[in-house]
Amino acid sequence: MQVAIPLYPRYTALDAVGPYTVLAFAPGWTVTFVAEEAGPVTDDQGTLTLTATASYADMPRPDVIVVPGGLGTLDALSDTALTGWIRQAHEHTTWTTSVCSGSLLLGAAGLLKGVQATTHWALLDLLKEGGAVAVSQRVVKEGKIWTAAGVSAGIDMALTLLAQATDEETAQSVQLAIEYDPQPPFTAGSPDKAPEGTAERALRLLI
Amino acid sequence: MQVAIPLYPRYTALDAVGPYTVLAFAPGWTVTFVAEEAGPVTDDQGTLTLTATASYADMPRPDVIVVPGGLGTLDALSDTALTGWIRQAHEHTTWTTSVCSGSLLLGAAGLLKGVQATTHWALLDLLKEGGAVAVSQRVVKEGKIWTAAGVSAGIDMALTLLAQATDEETAQSVQLAIEYDPQPPFTAGSPDKAPEGTAERALRLLI
Repeated sequence: MQVAIPLYPRYTALDAVGPYTVLAFAPGWTVTFVAEEAGPVTDDQGTLTLTATASYADMPRPDVIVVPGGLGTLDALSDTALTGWIRQAHEHTTWTTSVCSGSLLLGAAGLLKGVQATTHWALLDLLKEGGAVAVSQRVVKEGKIWTAAGVSAGIDMALTLLAQATDEETAQSVQLAIEYDPQPPFTAGSPDKAPEGTAERALRLLI
Repeated sequence: MQVAIPLYPRYTALDAVGPYTVLAFAPGWTVTFVAEEAGPVTDDQGTLTLTATASYADMPRPDVIVVPGGLGTLDALSDTALTGWIRQAHEHTTWTTSVCSGSLLLGAAGLLKGVQATTHWALLDLLKEGGAVAVSQRVVKEGKIWTAAGVSAGIDMALTLLAQATDEETAQSVQLAIEYDPQPPFTAGSPDKAPEGTAERALRLLI
């Protein structure tokens, strides 16, 4: 299975690397980072650079795409090389997926009109404005379009996708290989559960 | 706070990028990827390349080090540039930490004699052979040496560390910013919980 993860300026690293790690560990799966041109692309903290080893033109028909979000997503909405690639790749994908604000890019590519989708909790209204049916849920599946909530949700989505594409045993083997037995020290990972005031402080980290 | 994450050939991407994302989102924290020489370093799947922006010599005294594991760890045990840097940096760190098999590198640097530590579930015996007191636990803290279990455990460790270094509110804000409200689709993330046969299949993904 060929997976492509597009990188654009100021993506969030874990959005890309969470699903990457899950899917790249799966036997027979190859994950490629792509960009408008092959080369280094820096994340939204300015301190992590991943190499895109192929251009969009090099990978017109991946089986799966995983579009990451990031603080650069809003700028990337007008990146027609990116949204054009997403639109054209989607015609042939088995799954078209996103993590976090990456779903806004699926929307900008015209894929989410009337489609149920999710995004980072802070962006659900914006997703709705783009024509999607915004759903507050960890992973939302509608047909072949699967969207995950913020950042770390891409790990859950990728395991779910792997089980669907192969079988539960394979997904469970990868889960155990990466020892994904999460034990967060706090119950603060969603706005409904986090202590009062956490959302305001979290938002300040995201601008 | 200055954090350094050393990269060596065939690290596991999520070991490095999980803690990176948590700590890089924290206000006032800077995370730098380092290597023997600055430049690109490729992971253990051969398809992800991160850029080290500094050499070990450039960062002799970070406040925190996070040593990732990976399929290349065993080869790296004899990488004296790496283990020498770990040993010297440790003299001045506030915290010396590792993820997954990264603790074997702390051991090779001579830091774990009689020290409680953890690693990937498949490597606990090997960790013990190196003189550490191997503990099967998500995050193990002994003094300033903190070690995390396999791959994804680095996220839990980094949030715990951030709370200790700053305050719970800051760690919770980052947790909410990255929407770390894990919902794994299966209960298979530790050998005790995974269905029968999963461990054998997982091990085959790790060779």
